[in-house]
Amino acid sequence: MNRSPIGIFDSGIGGLTVTKEIVRQLPYESIIYLGDTARVPYGTRSKEVVASFAKDLANFLLKRNVKALVVACNTISSVALEEIEKMSPVPVIGVVKPLAKKAVNQTRNKKIGVIGTNGTINSGAYEKEIKNIDPEIEIISVGCPLFVPLAEEGLYSHKATKLIAEDYLHNIILAGVDTLILGCTHYPLLKDAIAQILGSGVALIDSAEPTTEELKKILAENDLFAEKNVPTREFFVTDAPERVYQVAGRFFGSEIKDKIKKISLT
Amino acid sequence: MNRSPIGIFDSGIGGLTVTKEIVRQLPYESIIYLGDTARVPYGTRSKEVVASFAKDLANFLLKRNVKALVVACNTISSVALEEIEKMSPVPVIGVVKPLAKKAVNQTRNKKIGVIGTNGTINSGAYEKEIKNIDPEIEIISVGCPLFVPLAEEGLYSHKATKLIAEDYLHNIILAGVDTLILGCTHYPLLKDAIAQILGSGVALIDSAEPTTEELKKILAENDLFAEKNVPTREFFVTDAPERVYQVAGRFFGSEIKDKIKKISLT
Repeated sequence: MNRSPIGIFDSGIGGLTVTKEIVRQLPYESIIYLGDTARVPYGTRSKEVVASFAKDLANFLLKRNVKALVVACNTISSVALEEIEKMSPVPVIGVVKPLAKKAVNQTRNKKIGVIGTNGTINSGAYEKEIKNIDPEIEIISVGCPLFVPLAEEGLYSHKATKLIAEDYLHNIILAGVDTLILGCTHYPLLKDAIAQILGSGVALIDSAEPTTEELKKILAENDLFAEKNVPTREFFVTDAPERVYQVAGRFFGSEIKDKIKKISLT
Repeated sequence: MNRSPIGIFDSGIGGLTVTKEIVRQLPYESIIYLGDTARVPYGTRSKEVVASFAKDLANFLLKRNVKALVVACNTISSVALEEIEKMSPVPVIGVVKPLAKKAVNQTRNKKIGVIGTNGTINSGAYEKEIKNIDPEIEIISVGCPLFVPLAEEGLYSHKATKLIAEDYLHNIILAGVDTLILGCTHYPLLKDAIAQILGSGVALIDSAEPTTEELKKILAENDLFAEKNVPTREFFVTDAPERVYQVAGRFFGSEIKDKIKKISLT
């Protein structure tokens, strides 16, 4: 048993969609969330810069004696997970491996689509994980760089979002996939728009549930559950303009405005 | 006379639209451009974070002995110009004042529209400058946060861009302005889409030409022209993913791929 908090980090506030599920399934666990809102987004940056920023975030949480690190960001999990694992004395859980595994279990026709930031897609991380489990699966990957700003601006059902999504998803539809990986923690907010275009024959799966399952497995294996603990929940960001307060609640599923604290990493 | 370079900086590569005009009008001047592509965009961040990042950029250029600093970014010019002026031993030229002045000279019906990032619009910097010159002018300002990602993705004439622009410009049209300030260095790339919506009765003015005129005035006043110099042109960025190389040429108007160098500010 261990009552230390679980550290969760992301390039911004997208990781709150994963945090919401962790808190739901593990109500006794204390958590510390850290979002790098001063330098978000990571999905357009080089691997080197993402790795360097991600290490700053991990360091902040490790100094606070977290018992595990959840990398609640597809871009960081895709391009810098190894580097985080190397520096961390505690278990590290990324979102890519659990999500890839779930998609492989889900598909019937062995055709999986992956959408994400350009950083995630260009890394080929999902292809690698899926092919490791089943080399016969066909994979089609598409970078959707405008989905993050559209989600952050709240244009979930705007006609412009639909038009852009139709462009992005065109080749996914042509490929006839039956499973689509939402490979970015912002995308659950656009799930309805994406589902409308793809129809009910395509299962949409996101990071929240499989990552939480993986976290539970790791906690069990290492005897790290907090059990009947009175949990603390802290939310840190590196910049807190009004917009972060406005949007955070939407991503976490309930208001956390008063709990968000601004910190500096330097 | 002074052959030291002019330092030009921006949150990313948008400032290249201003740099293009500076190079065209001042062909003998050496320039050093610095774009903070590792931390772009600034338009969604707090004033404090923008000021802190902007000082890093100014420091880099001042160490290279520039004879003047051009803040080729509307967000930085709107929220942190004073701080840059305080730290700089050389003249500082922002984009807001020259652009506001040009708009006041241009308007006939004394109604001016301003569009920009949320950072620029929330600062009220354009209102302040315009009211300083002529308090009777009516101003309507609208933040257009999706214009930067749409411009960077090259969706200049996409139907989605048109729909989003129609939403953003709705109140500008209702107000009956005859002059619109494109208060972000990315927006010249969306000029055609904006002009189509507003029609030929509205003059669209951007930062490039008035800022270059102001720079020339300051160089003249301080006897800083290089004159028959063989100029050098250096372009630095803080991160250089493939996408920066792809887009930079579009903003500068000619290919500069081989001239871009990646540096670190820390």
